[in-house]
Amino acid sequence: MAQKPSIPKGTRDFSPAEVAKRNYISSKMKHHFEVFGFQPIETPSFENSETLMGKYGEEGDRLIFKILNSGDYLEKFNRILLQIIHKLVNDYQKIYIDLSNDKNRPSFIEHIQAIENDYDTYVARLNKELFNNEDELTIVSFKDILFLVKRHCYDTHDKVNVFINKTKEEIEQLVITIFSDFFISLKGKHMVAYISEKALRYDLTVPFARYVVQHQNEIEFPFKRYQIQPVWRADRPQKGRFREFYQCDADVVGSTSLWQEVELVQLYDAVFTDLGLGGTTIKINNRKILSGIAEVIGAKDKLIDFTVALDKLDKIGEDGVKKEMLEKGISATALEKVQPLFQFTGTVAEKIEKLNQLLATSVEGLKGVEELRFICETLEKLGLQTALIDLDVTLARGLNYYTGAIFEVVAPQVVMGSIGGGGRYDDLTGIFGLKNMSGVGISFGLDRIYLVLEELGLFPDTVSATTKALFINYGNHESLYAMEAIFKLRRAGIKVELYPDAAKIAKQFQYADKRGIPFAVIAGLSELERMEFGLKNLQTGEQVKLNFESLKKALS
Amino acid sequence: MAQKPSIPKGTRDFSPAEVAKRNYISSKMKHHFEVFGFQPIETPSFENSETLMGKYGEEGDRLIFKILNSGDYLEKFNRILLQIIHKLVNDYQKIYIDLSNDKNRPSFIEHIQAIENDYDTYVARLNKELFNNEDELTIVSFKDILFLVKRHCYDTHDKVNVFINKTKEEIEQLVITIFSDFFISLKGKHMVAYISEKALRYDLTVPFARYVVQHQNEIEFPFKRYQIQPVWRADRPQKGRFREFYQCDADVVGSTSLWQEVELVQLYDAVFTDLGLGGTTIKINNRKILSGIAEVIGAKDKLIDFTVALDKLDKIGEDGVKKEMLEKGISATALEKVQPLFQFTGTVAEKIEKLNQLLATSVEGLKGVEELRFICETLEKLGLQTALIDLDVTLARGLNYYTGAIFEVVAPQVVMGSIGGGGRYDDLTGIFGLKNMSGVGISFGLDRIYLVLEELGLFPDTVSATTKALFINYGNHESLYAMEAIFKLRRAGIKVELYPDAAKIAKQFQYADKRGIPFAVIAGLSELERMEFGLKNLQTGEQVKLNFESLKKALS
Repeated sequence: MAQKPSIPKGTRDFSPAEVAKRNYISSKMKHHFEVFGFQPIETPSFENSETLMGKYGEEGDRLIFKILNSGDYLEKFNRILLQIIHKLVNDYQKIYIDLSNDKNRPSFIEHIQAIENDYDTYVARLNKELFNNEDELTIVSFKDILFLVKRHCYDTHDKVNVFINKTKEEIEQLVITIFSDFFISLKGKHMVAYISEKALRYDLTVPFARYVVQHQNEIEFPFKRYQIQPVWRADRPQKGRFREFYQCDADVVGSTSLWQEVELVQLYDAVFTDLGLGGTTIKINNRKILSGIAEVIGAKDKLIDFTVALDKLDKIGEDGVKKEMLEKGISATALEKVQPLFQFTGTVAEKIEKLNQLLATSVEGLKGVEELRFICETLEKLGLQTALIDLDVTLARGLNYYTGAIFEVVAPQVVMGSIGGGGRYDDLTGIFGLKNMSGVGISFGLDRIYLVLEELGLFPDTVSATTKALFINYGNHESLYAMEAIFKLRRAGIKVELYPDAAKIAKQFQYADKRGIPFAVIAGLSELERMEFGLKNLQTGEQVKLNFESLKKALS
Repeated sequence: MAQKPSIPKGTRDFSPAEVAKRNYISSKMKHHFEVFGFQPIETPSFENSETLMGKYGEEGDRLIFKILNSGDYLEKFNRILLQIIHKLVNDYQKIYIDLSNDKNRPSFIEHIQAIENDYDTYVARLNKELFNNEDELTIVSFKDILFLVKRHCYDTHDKVNVFINKTKEEIEQLVITIFSDFFISLKGKHMVAYISEKALRYDLTVPFARYVVQHQNEIEFPFKRYQIQPVWRADRPQKGRFREFYQCDADVVGSTSLWQEVELVQLYDAVFTDLGLGGTTIKINNRKILSGIAEVIGAKDKLIDFTVALDKLDKIGEDGVKKEMLEKGISATALEKVQPLFQFTGTVAEKIEKLNQLLATSVEGLKGVEELRFICETLEKLGLQTALIDLDVTLARGLNYYTGAIFEVVAPQVVMGSIGGGGRYDDLTGIFGLKNMSGVGISFGLDRIYLVLEELGLFPDTVSATTKALFINYGNHESLYAMEAIFKLRRAGIKVELYPDAAKIAKQFQYADKRGIPFAVIAGLSELERMEFGLKNLQTGEQVKLNFESLKKALS
């Protein structure tokens, strides 16, 4: 079978050069994560479905990769289906017989109505009869078929029996359709629960919450953890969006201290500075400020419309923004109240002052201002290495679950979405029954950081440094001499290789060249006899004869 | 929803301490892989099903985790099913009508027989009629229903129509069974192909073969790659066997040179020596020697029985082994021919000599002896650091695909299955259409190596070294002073933390203690005023006052 091999869309192979560069980034992250006191954990690639489902909204649930139960995944479903089919075909005959004869039709309608009037009794009886009450599915399925029978057999609107004036063939066709529809609806709606109980991790936050609750007795709180693992999303693949990608998260759970927000900004600064990516902008906002604004404009439900419109300030100008806001149903008086936001310029300190006045009437809003003030003023005093702080009141990412600080990082010079983001969520573990666990965390976008470093040429050449020297293979006798040297060099941590075959010399040099190996070592018969080595620089072409010690020095 | 969270059976969470130890092992591997000239690649967690299916035998296929298609995974299957159901219910009526009347039965039988006699024409017509030839499934499904109709409606053995002497009710029941059976068989047999097109990686070898073929034009051969990634198997979980576990593979593809076998043994030696695991035994065998033995005993098909029995030599003794072999149908004369294998002792060199005589009549066997001789003699000359070589003719792992050398590593002192293994496979990439690509590789068993190091206490204490010092939090004013020091210490790569809240001092010390943090730094008001720090050793309890520079030195 000689299929042309390929990989699923949205996934990637990583070549040695790419892996080296990705490891370069993640090892920097790990270093600073640990220097900042974060500890690594790892969780399984797949979780029980109930752990993930319902945590990301309807859209999220749709994007979760589900894993088919192993073994005979249809066994249970089939057992049930078998019984239902028997029931159905029997019913079919009854209906068919009933309705092929005009005078039977009323009794059929009564039959249906009787069932409707005392549905529970009927279902209970069916369950007892068919499944000894043991199976939920029958209830649902018979609900379905009843619904379908009704929909097809008579018009619920005015209870006119649509079978009147229908030929036997038409009636048969109707009943066929009933069963068809039934099967389709049955399978689509109820099958997944029977054939899949596991799903691939969609992010690292929900598994982390699950981990904290499951291991709460082994953990010392506040717990600072980092996690660098792949996640999977059945998203439509497009440039820069993949179905398998790494998330790099650092979170603290178990304390509401704002010092953590301060540290997380310092962590961003430390990592990006170390990557040579100076001048990244760390945008900060606070969920409470957004709530405050909503309060002030007296339209909590319009908050999204408001921030989305305000975000376009530099594109479409104040008038354009206000026009859009009014169209969205935000009142003119509301706009007057937040007028300062339309000239929201100046230093972070000045912006905070403006917000302080603007939100004077909102208790929650002022709380947000105070939090922001502490974070920004402290960072001001401590200073950052290369990152810049910007207060951005339009920043609303993850509005649904953030409750305090909101962060987003934008790379300098290159146009690229955010390369990081995060925030404070006051009830991280509540979904798993552990209350009052405030968490705050940030995430690094490995793939985008990679693209930025690539575009700005910030990867050091040493990153993809390959083998230092290739020993030319002149046959087994000489190769033994070569391998003795290689053995000692490798023990000294020097990357050297022997070309495995005694191929044409030209071919071996070509191989070293294509591999980007800087040196070739000639260890032929004459070198062997003199106990020396020829070291050839493949860039300059110059060649020297050395004894082992000098060779070792030269390659170190 | 306060479910008690858990993870799927056979999977694991890794705590910070466990991650640190696992990283310690894999980083040693990576170091030596790269020193030996192997380059890292990474492949996607899931592959197209056709890439994996059929590569691991029937048992393997069963253990592959299949991923449900995303989106409406049943849409296509339902569309087809809908049409089939219509067809079926129509057929049902025909059969029902036909057979409820005795004189119709012969025509039904003819109908069936006509279909049999010109099956292809019939199926072609059905496909055209129902699906415009576009769908395979109908062919299969109608094959099925025909088969079932035949099985239930008349006895193919002597063509007696079983409907004779059956009541109308019995006939109906038969036909109901026909449809039931049909649906079950249909779904079980044909559904997976319609609802799942991706599967989780089962090992790293097949994805590597796929990678090599897909990227053959970007690769310089011989290609030495290593890969450390998780794999998934729907195996029944048990002690030491997991459904998600890491494989650590190093392979060379594109050369048949035996120097690679030599290097791979050296690589094992280098890694295990570096892990402090001296005295590991590297068992070596060769597939060609096994074939040679089979030749000599004149029973290729008995080879497995032979090696399995021979493997019990030290348990049940020569007589016991021979008894078992005879029971398995290996002739007495055959056993005489391989008599030397029952006293197969002495040095590797001596064993090779014995094999050389034993296999004198087998060309392939002698080839295997020569390969083994080169590998062992070369390693003898080069020497190993701490590993031991053992020639084990019973070693037959992966017999099905190895074609040359076979390796297996056994840990010293502790009883534990193999902690590594590998071998040469001459047609690695053939399954994907790239011929004549010989590969040889070895694998490290991360989980088992972990258990061995744990049991022998070989993990250095430094491995799980956590934060060096915890700064006690006395409130925001003092914490700013502390954070200024922390900021500078972290930039020097020293792991320090500030307790995030100004909690009771006792609680903060307790936290440091439980976290195993060796030092606490007191930076209260008095220290702040004197610009100094109190450094408390939490083991000895002794405390000193230091300025920042001395503090930095003390924590470095």
